[in-house]
Parts: sequence; C-alpha cells; structure tokens
Amino acid sequence: MAQPVSSDSLLPRALASDNAAMARLMSRAEASSSECRQAMAQLYAKAGRAHVIGITGVPGSGKSTLVSTLTLKLRASGKRVGIIAVDPSSPYSGGSIMGDRIRMSELVNDEGVFIRSMATRGAQGGMARASLEAVDVLDAAGFEYVIIETVGVGQAEVEIARAAHTVVVVSAPGLGDDIQAIKAGILEIADIHVVSKCDRSDANRTIGDLKNMLTMGMSLVPGGGWNAPVVPTSSANGEGFEKLIECLDRHGHYIRTTDAGRQRVRRIAEFRMLKTAEDLLHQRFLAARQSTLANVSEQLAQRLISPYQAAERLLDGVNLEKTS
Amino acid sequence: MAQPVSSDSLLPRALASDNAAMARLMSRAEASSSECRQAMAQLYAKAGRAHVIGITGVPGSGKSTLVSTLTLKLRASGKRVGIIAVDPSSPYSGGSIMGDRIRMSELVNDEGVFIRSMATRGAQGGMARASLEAVDVLDAAGFEYVIIETVGVGQAEVEIARAAHTVVVVSAPGLGDDIQAIKAGILEIADIHVVSKCDRSDANRTIGDLKNMLTMGMSLVPGGGWNAPVVPTSSANGEGFEKLIECLDRHGHYIRTTDAGRQRVRRIAEFRMLKTAEDLLHQRFLAARQSTLANVSEQLAQRLISPYQAAERLLDGVNLEKTS
Repeated sequence: MAQPVSSDSLLPRALASDNAAMARLMSRAEASSSECRQAMAQLYAKAGRAHVIGITGVPGSGKSTLVSTLTLKLRASGKRVGIIAVDPSSPYSGGSIMGDRIRMSELVNDEGVFIRSMATRGAQGGMARASLEAVDVLDAAGFEYVIIETVGVGQAEVEIARAAHTVVVVSAPGLGDDIQAIKAGILEIADIHVVSKCDRSDANRTIGDLKNMLTMGMSLVPGGGWNAPVVPTSSANGEGFEKLIECLDRHGHYIRTTDAGRQRVRRIAEFRMLKTAEDLLHQRFLAARQSTLANVSEQLAQRLISPYQAAERLLDGVNLEKTS
Repeated sequence: MAQPVSSDSLLPRALASDNAAMARLMSRAEASSSECRQAMAQLYAKAGRAHVIGITGVPGSGKSTLVSTLTLKLRASGKRVGIIAVDPSSPYSGGSIMGDRIRMSELVNDEGVFIRSMATRGAQGGMARASLEAVDVLDAAGFEYVIIETVGVGQAEVEIARAAHTVVVVSAPGLGDDIQAIKAGILEIADIHVVSKCDRSDANRTIGDLKNMLTMGMSLVPGGGWNAPVVPTSSANGEGFEKLIECLDRHGHYIRTTDAGRQRVRRIAEFRMLKTAEDLLHQRFLAARQSTLANVSEQLAQRLISPYQAAERLLDGVNLEKTS
C-alpha cells in the first residue's frame, strides 16, 4: 500500500485552495490526529483574515436556505465562501434538500465555494475544536467569508455559533410553541437578527414580535456600542440580502476597529484554547487510564464509591499546580 | 445573618422526601459546591432502586405532554415520580404551557411528584453531572420512577437521555422536513419508540414509516436481545399508556436481570465518572490557571501560538501517569 500523504505535504496544496487537500486536513483534524498538528499550527498562523459568520436558528427557521442564498449573493461580488455545517437538519449534512436542490447544485459546482459537514454524533465533545480548525483551513486558504451553520438547539451547538465574529440568529414566521420557546433562548446571542420567509403574509407579526422583545431590553448588551439590527429576508424573491450583507460588513468593521471587537476576538481565542485543552486532556486521560477505568467504573456501578470519588481516583496523580 | 443549613443536616430531610431539602441539595450540586459532596456521596450510596427513564424527542413531538400523562398514569398505581427537565421547550423549564396547563397543575400539587428543571444555558458542561445528581436525590428518597426529559437535538442533551436505564424516543405525525432529519439521528438510541398524538388521522403513516425504518435494520442493536417496540399513544384520549407502562416495566426487568442490562448500568457509571472528572478538572484548571489564562489567550488571539500550543501551555505541569 502507498504511504499516506503527510499533512506537511498537504499544506501548500491546501493553502492554494486545493479542495481535496483541504478536505483531508479537515478530516485529520476532526479525527484528532497528532500527525497534522504542525500543519494545522501553520494554517492557524496564516489565518485571521476571513470574516467568520455564525448562522443559527431553530429547526424550520429556514437557515440552510438563507445560507445558500447568502452564499450566492456573496459570490456575485467575487468573494469566496466556505460553509461549515454543524447541523443534522442541514442539506449539507444529509438533511432535507427538497427546497434547496437548485441552489445547492449551483453552490456545489462553484469553485469559489467549499462546503464541509461536521459530524454531530459520536464526536465526544471535540466538535467545537474540529469545526474551528476547519474554519482555519478555509481562512488560511484565503476564503473571505466562512459561515458556520449550527442548529440553534443544544448547548454545544450554540456555543460553536458564538465562536464566530458575527452571530446571525434566524427567526421565521409560523413556527410552533415548542420551537418559539427554544428560540427565545438564542435571541440574546445575535449580532444580527434575520426574519426569513418575509414574503409570507404572517411575517410582519414575527418582525413586530421580535422588535418588541428587543426593545424590552434585550438589545442593550453590556459593553456593546452595537445595536443588533432586524433584517427581513426572502430567499424566494431575494429581498433583504443587500441589507444583510451591508450589516455583516458593518459588523465585521466593528469587530476589527473597536475595543469591544478586540475583546470578542480574544474571547473566541480563549474558548478555542479551553476546548482544545479539554480535548487533549480527555485523550491523554483515556489513554493513561484505560486499565483503571474498568475497575473504577465497576465499583461505581456497584455504588461502593461515589461519582466524585471515582473521578478523584481517575485524576489521582494529576497535578494542576504550576511546576516551574 | 443566619448560618446556611449544612448539606449534611439537609440529608435526613431529603431522604424523608422533604421537597425543600431535596431542592436545596440539587441546587448546591448544580452549583458544583464542594460542601455538598459528602452528602451527595451518601445519597448515591443509598440510590440505585429507581427506574430511570430518559424521554427525548424533537421539538413538537409532544414529549412534555407525554411526560405529564405518563406521570399521572404511574401515580394512579401509587408510585412516586420525579421529573428532571433538561429542555428549554419543556413547560417545566418555562416553555409553552398552554396545552398542558390542566395536567401540570394536577402534577404540581401532587406530593408524590417532584419536578426539577435544569439550567441548559451557561452550565459550562456540568449539565450532565448535575442532572444525574438530581436523579440520585430522588432515587435515594425512594421515588420509584425518575424521568429525565431532554430535547432530542444537541449532543450534550442526547447524551444525558442515554444515561437512563430505559430510553424512550417520541415521534409525532405532521412535523416538518427539518425536524424529520433531526429525528432520524436519535431513533437509534431508543429502547422504546412512542408515536404520540395517535388520535390524529395522519398518525398511521408515521407509525408505518417508523416500523419500516426499524425493519431496515435499525432495531438490530448488537449485544441486545431486546427489540425496541413501537407504542402509539394519545394524551388526548389516554390510548397506549397501559402498553407503554408495560413496556417500561418489561425493559426495567430486562436491565435488572440480563448481562446486557448489567453492561448498560456499568456504561452509565462510566459516563458519570468521566463527566464528573471532566467537571472537576475544568474547575481546578480554571482556578489554577486564571493568571496564565489571560496571557496565553492574548498570544493565541494574536496568532503568535496555535490552539494546541496554548492548550499545551495550560496543561503544562499536568501529569497523567499514575504516581503510586
């Protein structure tokens, strides 16, 4: 069998936007391969120019359609767009594609668009780290925009959307009560609110309700200087996308030029550091303790020890005081 | 100001099912208080008799209504029921209550029912640990059934439902495509499938679709000996709940009496151990590294180091080899 190509030799090809090389590096990062760490570090060092946009919303809010249309509009101005889909309902992750078939095929055949779907199951918590490493690959390769699409339900999923420069929360008319309750929980993370499907007759009520909620104090995020605008869009007739792109660019400028923006970038770095540390710790931990694990978990299952005692035994030997 | 009551002195009251004492211990556990650890360990040692049931489903599947009706039916046989709601759309967590108002008030005023809603935001990953400690409190206090209700979207949320003896996945007729795609992802974790709202005319199609999916191989979970039944229910007319309770009891017996069941209990213990260890590590980590944190994250934000280098610096001094 042929030797697998080293990550270091994939690096220049990935930087030249070779799709296969980019995809392979993303897969290795996702699998927590240590072989690719040097290459990923180099990509990270070269990255930092892309505008990273988190787009989230409850199921049924039309965020995948929004992502498709937004990408087409951004492409019209010649900018390259990467899409990282962390969403089981996304058409890019194998979800419903009926309404999006035409748009999607346009995107899939466009050299200036790269779409990556991240596993959301079985990823043992490494989902955030791997998704943001995929962003690095696209950023370093010179993609001007990287969109992270996540479903707006689930602690881990919402956290990933927040690790973007600009967070867009998508609302839509005509969703059920259960969904509305979930939606209320994510409105506060929005830098930009989009109300999709605004060609529908009941969209005005959704826009009005949202604006009411925002004037009730939610827009006054402390340390801000940024008021989250409400942008109605329609993927059916293209309405609102010019304004959305203008708001995105304005927020991108805000992030680059203000103290609050610099704090945001630093908070994202802190999040990445912690997620990477957790991951690394978890891997080492499982490797070092494989034999102890079965024994301790058996004692725990028999209730001879408590969960904290079991955890302490596993951590026994871990010294978190600074050694130097 | 009066001295706060110690967890050790709350313990006998919690064991005697005093609602206030149980709630206070749960709050302290949720806040990662080390003061309550001894008391929680004693509760854990006394627990292990309750049947822990995870109920999950996509938003709109009617799982909260199912939980309400199931609880009323279980109460009719005199058994006590605890409900841990890890779901922003649950009426118990402040979500939609319109349809459930009557049932809920019956439950809330019933001494044999204890309802606890867990924070799903800002819980820094400790959600699983805290939810399962809340189960311990109810279990040790002699509640025969403890239901963990989680929304079936989100990695962390689905993981918690799986930490139950019996997992019930709720499907419903008439959900949108986006929701259906998410649903497909959680079907495989079910010990029992419920199709709710089976009084609706389109329910038969949902039941048929589900059975087709299951015969396409999904029910053949390896190492099983348990075939997940499909139970149609209607909270409107009470249909199916007798069968659901019979299936729950049959699965509870299966867990207690088979090798596969014992393995399941051990896997749950392992999950708890790891989640508790992660939590503990995270706490110590942040405490020990607070001063280093700002410095390293600033270097990371400026791309002078990579996320792995930042993580390594934070973990520097952590020794995971066994010392004794």
